[in-house]
Amino acid sequence: MSENQQVLIDSLPQGKLEASHYKLASAPMPEPGADEVLVKTTAFAITAGTRAGLQGSASYAGAPQTGIVMNGTGVGEVVASNVASVPVGANVLAPTGWQAFSVQQAGVVTVIPEGHDPVHYLGPLGVNGLTAYFGLLEVGRPQPGETVMVSAAAGSVGHIVGQIARIKGNHVVGVCGSDAKCAMLQSDLGFDAAVNYHDDGFRQNLKAATPDGVDVYFDNTGGMILGAALFRMNLYGRIACCGVVSQYDTDRPEPGPKGVPGLLVNKRLTMRGFLLFDFAEQYARAREALHGWLESGELKSLTDEVQGLAAAPEGFVDLLAGGNVGTRVVRL
Amino acid sequence: MSENQQVLIDSLPQGKLEASHYKLASAPMPEPGADEVLVKTTAFAITAGTRAGLQGSASYAGAPQTGIVMNGTGVGEVVASNVASVPVGANVLAPTGWQAFSVQQAGVVTVIPEGHDPVHYLGPLGVNGLTAYFGLLEVGRPQPGETVMVSAAAGSVGHIVGQIARIKGNHVVGVCGSDAKCAMLQSDLGFDAAVNYHDDGFRQNLKAATPDGVDVYFDNTGGMILGAALFRMNLYGRIACCGVVSQYDTDRPEPGPKGVPGLLVNKRLTMRGFLLFDFAEQYARAREALHGWLESGELKSLTDEVQGLAAAPEGFVDLLAGGNVGTRVVRL
Repeated sequence: MSENQQVLIDSLPQGKLEASHYKLASAPMPEPGADEVLVKTTAFAITAGTRAGLQGSASYAGAPQTGIVMNGTGVGEVVASNVASVPVGANVLAPTGWQAFSVQQAGVVTVIPEGHDPVHYLGPLGVNGLTAYFGLLEVGRPQPGETVMVSAAAGSVGHIVGQIARIKGNHVVGVCGSDAKCAMLQSDLGFDAAVNYHDDGFRQNLKAATPDGVDVYFDNTGGMILGAALFRMNLYGRIACCGVVSQYDTDRPEPGPKGVPGLLVNKRLTMRGFLLFDFAEQYARAREALHGWLESGELKSLTDEVQGLAAAPEGFVDLLAGGNVGTRVVRL
Repeated sequence: MSENQQVLIDSLPQGKLEASHYKLASAPMPEPGADEVLVKTTAFAITAGTRAGLQGSASYAGAPQTGIVMNGTGVGEVVASNVASVPVGANVLAPTGWQAFSVQQAGVVTVIPEGHDPVHYLGPLGVNGLTAYFGLLEVGRPQPGETVMVSAAAGSVGHIVGQIARIKGNHVVGVCGSDAKCAMLQSDLGFDAAVNYHDDGFRQNLKAATPDGVDVYFDNTGGMILGAALFRMNLYGRIACCGVVSQYDTDRPEPGPKGVPGLLVNKRLTMRGFLLFDFAEQYARAREALHGWLESGELKSLTDEVQGLAAAPEGFVDLLAGGNVGTRVVRL
């Protein structure tokens, strides 16, 4: 336990991200100072949103850098502690990054209650689940019986959005990138319909899947799918803008969809962007609801596991190409 | 008084609108039936939004047609009446269209109070003023001291938006299409700054005019100006989507601005489209406020008059090219 293992950002992608933009490295084992703990990572999540951090200053993540540990949220076990409230042996959620060990300040770790599965804190009880919860219920605000559409519907956030909408009594339509994912969303997660955006008949299929139009669209992708959604929106519809995964893995983002702002005016639509941090004061309430649905079996958590630090870069490239089902988790 | 004079839509524009898409025609004098009045038009307004009605089914105005009277809102005098509450001699606001006489149902006319200037009902007390009022105050919701930006700022709606924002204690920045309009907005209407979008340095000038960013953007144009506004918006900014004048006079609308939805997410912006009709129950309250500001001199109404029916088509073409200052009114 004298060395740490890390995945560093070695170079910044000009076009598509490749595994070679990362490198594995060793570093001295870090030591916790006052008010700090040492965390041994047991798993971390790979999320599409972190691609934006490699893309210039337009991202909320700030300007990209090389030579640093790739950022990411993880769970782990406290192996040394200078913080009474976070003892050795506790399981914690923390911004571990892609590395085996990390020093964390007391203020940024969340102690995971006994009896909860730590990996759930990378999925339904972590950033993904909370993002789905607040984006759907506080930004989209669907009424029972309304139609909710979600893109990247088999992804880490999308598969939870659709299930919450189902629990709330909505007609749920997912958009994803393969027929196998479409089938899984309907048979395993209770979506009412699912449409493959790679299909030539995508717009027609989306129309058929939304016979009463769309009242709330939870947008994880932007781009062409957002454009198609705008044409299916009902009067006074709401679009919760969560992410732009269609535009992350490129240095030349597409122009916005044609219907902006014309269709917003004609149909009196509201589009609202949000970040999870804006709802920080309400996390506890949301976690309680999500944990209840997990316990009752109404909410299923899909994870898609990759083994070992060295596999993380390929796992990220594949995720950006749509290879994941649910939350992609790297186990150490 | 045995014949009516009308301007008909003769053909639909494929590219830019030309005066030759209209023709003057005579028609028999219409006769009011039960619950109807005959109105002699004294003036009507030409508004950019009606261009969308010539552009296919994407408009809220429905599919375009030829051989019909061009639509528009006018004021006139009642010359024959079968409605007790709308007597002969009353001045009324009505959907007259571009014609000398029209039959109106009792339910669609607004009787103009004695002592009010009827032409104000084509500007600050009519559709333009009400649109400015609700779009700014109910959709944009500026707080005192915030920066409000408005496009087509010297136009029929824009010049009223900017003045209401000034009255409400905002820093007001207008975008328009000439240096002369910029000067007028500042010297005559009390805008804090104005920027000419035809200038090569437009984006830099907009930046200089909005040193504290933009909290509320009242968008009359869409297109490139919306794109520039998105980059100036502050966190949690609001965009009131009123119209898309940059895209009306073409059969090939541009794609939407690049920042949609990426900048909406990063800055947690809200874009909301609206139509005036959604606020119909609150017209009386808004007219009272607007009339008060006109009386006190805080709100100035700019009109830009054209004489005679035959001049209306050229007046419309010129308006779409940005030739108007304030509300373009055709006097009969």
